[in-house]
Amino acid sequence: MSDSLKVIKPGVRALRAYALSPDRALVKINQNENPWDAPERVKEETWRRLAARKWSRYPDFVPLRLQEKLAAFAGWTADGVIAGNGSNELIQALLMVTLGEGKRVLISEPTFALYRQISTVLGAEVTSIPLNSALSYDVDAIHQAIMTIGPDVTIICSPNNPSGCVIADRELEDLLASARGIVVVDEAYHEFARHSVVPLLRAHPNLIVLRTFSKAMALAGLRVGYLLAAPELTHEISKAVLPYNLNVISQTAAEVAVEMYDGELRPMVQKIVNERERLFVEIGNIPGLDPVASHGNFLLVRSAIEPRKVFRHLLQSDILIRDVSGYPMLAEYFRVSVGTPEETNKLIASLRDMFRARQV
Amino acid sequence: MSDSLKVIKPGVRALRAYALSPDRALVKINQNENPWDAPERVKEETWRRLAARKWSRYPDFVPLRLQEKLAAFAGWTADGVIAGNGSNELIQALLMVTLGEGKRVLISEPTFALYRQISTVLGAEVTSIPLNSALSYDVDAIHQAIMTIGPDVTIICSPNNPSGCVIADRELEDLLASARGIVVVDEAYHEFARHSVVPLLRAHPNLIVLRTFSKAMALAGLRVGYLLAAPELTHEISKAVLPYNLNVISQTAAEVAVEMYDGELRPMVQKIVNERERLFVEIGNIPGLDPVASHGNFLLVRSAIEPRKVFRHLLQSDILIRDVSGYPMLAEYFRVSVGTPEETNKLIASLRDMFRARQV
Repeated sequence: MSDSLKVIKPGVRALRAYALSPDRALVKINQNENPWDAPERVKEETWRRLAARKWSRYPDFVPLRLQEKLAAFAGWTADGVIAGNGSNELIQALLMVTLGEGKRVLISEPTFALYRQISTVLGAEVTSIPLNSALSYDVDAIHQAIMTIGPDVTIICSPNNPSGCVIADRELEDLLASARGIVVVDEAYHEFARHSVVPLLRAHPNLIVLRTFSKAMALAGLRVGYLLAAPELTHEISKAVLPYNLNVISQTAAEVAVEMYDGELRPMVQKIVNERERLFVEIGNIPGLDPVASHGNFLLVRSAIEPRKVFRHLLQSDILIRDVSGYPMLAEYFRVSVGTPEETNKLIASLRDMFRARQV
Repeated sequence: MSDSLKVIKPGVRALRAYALSPDRALVKINQNENPWDAPERVKEETWRRLAARKWSRYPDFVPLRLQEKLAAFAGWTADGVIAGNGSNELIQALLMVTLGEGKRVLISEPTFALYRQISTVLGAEVTSIPLNSALSYDVDAIHQAIMTIGPDVTIICSPNNPSGCVIADRELEDLLASARGIVVVDEAYHEFARHSVVPLLRAHPNLIVLRTFSKAMALAGLRVGYLLAAPELTHEISKAVLPYNLNVISQTAAEVAVEMYDGELRPMVQKIVNERERLFVEIGNIPGLDPVASHGNFLLVRSAIEPRKVFRHLLQSDILIRDVSGYPMLAEYFRVSVGTPEETNKLIASLRDMFRARQV
C-alpha cells in the first residue's frame, strides 16, 4: 500500500464500492423510476420561472420557499423540513451528525444498500435483522434488537426496496416508544402505498421521515429529496447539509411539481398502481415465477431459473431489469420496476418465452 | 435537552450553523460569483442536448463522459477525476474517508469556513495556523506544524478566500514531501491567478486538487465541482460520493462549458482580472481604505470605518458586500467580489461618498 492510502480509514479501504452495471436497453425497468417523463406542464412552468435567472448566481443558501411548499404538501412545519440533492444526501447528513466509531445503527436486510455503505464509511457498527420468510419486516426481532443493542439510529425503508413490504403504524409506534435513539423511515415509495407516517411526527420527536422526487414525482434526473423531523433535530442535521446543495433548476422544478401534484402527477401514480397489480397477476401466471406482493412501484420475483440468466435473456430482448441475487436472502430473485403498459407487455412476452422453453 | 437530541454527537451540538445573511441588492458582490451570466451559447447548447432527455430517469451512476472531458481540460487522467454537486460535496467526501475521532486536520485561517465545519462534524481535531501579517501563507509555520502534529489532512485554499494569497509551487512541494498525510489544494479561483498545481499531481501521490464551476465558469447556480488526485485515492474517496450526485442538467452544462471555455469563458476571466486591477487602484485611492493584493476575483479591504457600517451604507445604495470582520484577524476588513465595470463604478462612488464624509 502506498503511503498516501494510509490516511484512508481502514473501514473505508475494506469497503467494496457501490456500483451499478452500465447496461442500457429500450425497456428500462431496473431503477424504480417513473416510466413516464415529468409532465410537459411541469417542465414548461419550470422554464418559464427560470427564464430570467442567471446561472452564474448561487442558489439560495437554504431553499426556504421550497421548504415551505414541502411542509404544506406533506402536512408538517417548514422549520422541520430539509431539502436535499436527492434523499441520499439527507441520509448521509443525518448519519454524519449521529454516527462515528463506537456508534450503532440497526437496519433490516435486504434493503437499500446505501444505509450500510454510509454507516460503514462513518465507522459505525451495523446490526442487521433479516426480513422474515415472507420477506416482510420481523418487527418482534427489530424490537428485541432495539432493546438489547440500543442503536443510535434505526433505519426502516417502508415500502421496502426491494421487497415491497411496509411497517404498520402501530408497529412503528412501538419501536418509536422503545427506542432511545432515532428511528428513520425512508418513504421513497410511499405514494404507491397510499400511506405515510408523517402524521406520527407530532407525537414522536425521535422519528425522521425521508422522501424523494425520484419515484412518483418523476424527477430522478434532477435529484431532489427531503427530510421531515422535529425542528430541534433538523436544526442539528442541517449542520451537515452543505450550503447551496440544491441547484436552482431542480429547486424550481420541485416547487412546480408539488404545486401540480394533484392534477398532473397523482393520476400517473394511480396508473402505476393499477399496472403493478396487473403485472403481479401476469407474472404469477407464468410457471416458474412467483412475485412478492408489493406496495412500491416494483416487484420482487422468485425465479426457478437463475436470476442472472433471466437478466441476460431479457437484456437480449432490450429489457433491463435488476438482478438482486447478490442481496442477502435473495439468491433466487430478480426485481422489475413497474413500467408503462407496453413495457409490461414486452416483459411478460419475453418471460413467457423463456419459461415456456424451460417446460419443454 | 430532549432525549432525541442525545443521539446528536456533542461536537455537532456545540457547532454554530454556517449561515449567510439573506440580504439582497442590485449590485451583488458578496459571493465571488462571475458577474456575467453563463454565455448564451453555453445555455443554448445545453438545452439542445437535453431536449430528448426524460427528467424521470436517473443520471448516470457516475458521470463518465464529464469526467473524461474534465481530465482532458485539466491535463490529468480520467480515472483520477471525481465530479460533484459543487466542490463542497467533494471536500466532504474526502474528509469522510480520512477523518473521525482522533484524526487531525491542519488549516490556515482566515480561510473558507467549510473546512473547519465539516472536520468538526466528523469529530476531528482542527489545528489552525494564522496567516502572516501580510495576510499570506506562513509556509514555515505550516511546515513546522506538519512535522510536529503529523496531520492526516492539510488543506490549503490557493488563491485563498478571503485574502487572495497563493502558495508557490516550490513551497507546496516542500509541504508535500514532508507530509505523511494528504495535502488538499482548493483551486476554486485558480483561473484568476492563471496558475494551477495540477502539474504537481504526477510527482506527488498525496496531493488532491479541488476545482469548481461556480467562479470563472459562471455556473454557481448549477452546482458543479471536481476533484483531481491519484486514481488509487479517487477510488477510495468515491466510496463516500453518493451515486447520481450530479443531476443531468448540471452535468450537461458543465460538459458544454468545458468545450466552450476558450471561446466563451476565457475572455470573461481576462475582463475580470483587468477589472480587479482597476478596482484595486480605485479603492487604494480612497483615504481610509487599504486593499490587499489578490489573485482571486475578489479583494479584501482594510477599512478605517467599521466594516459593519460600510456594509450597511453600501446596502442602502443597493450594493451587497461581505462583512468578514467576524473572521480571525479580519476585524477591520470587508470583502468585495469583482463585478462588472458598471458595478465597480457604483461601488467606488458609494465608498467615496462614505469616506469623504468621514474626512470632513
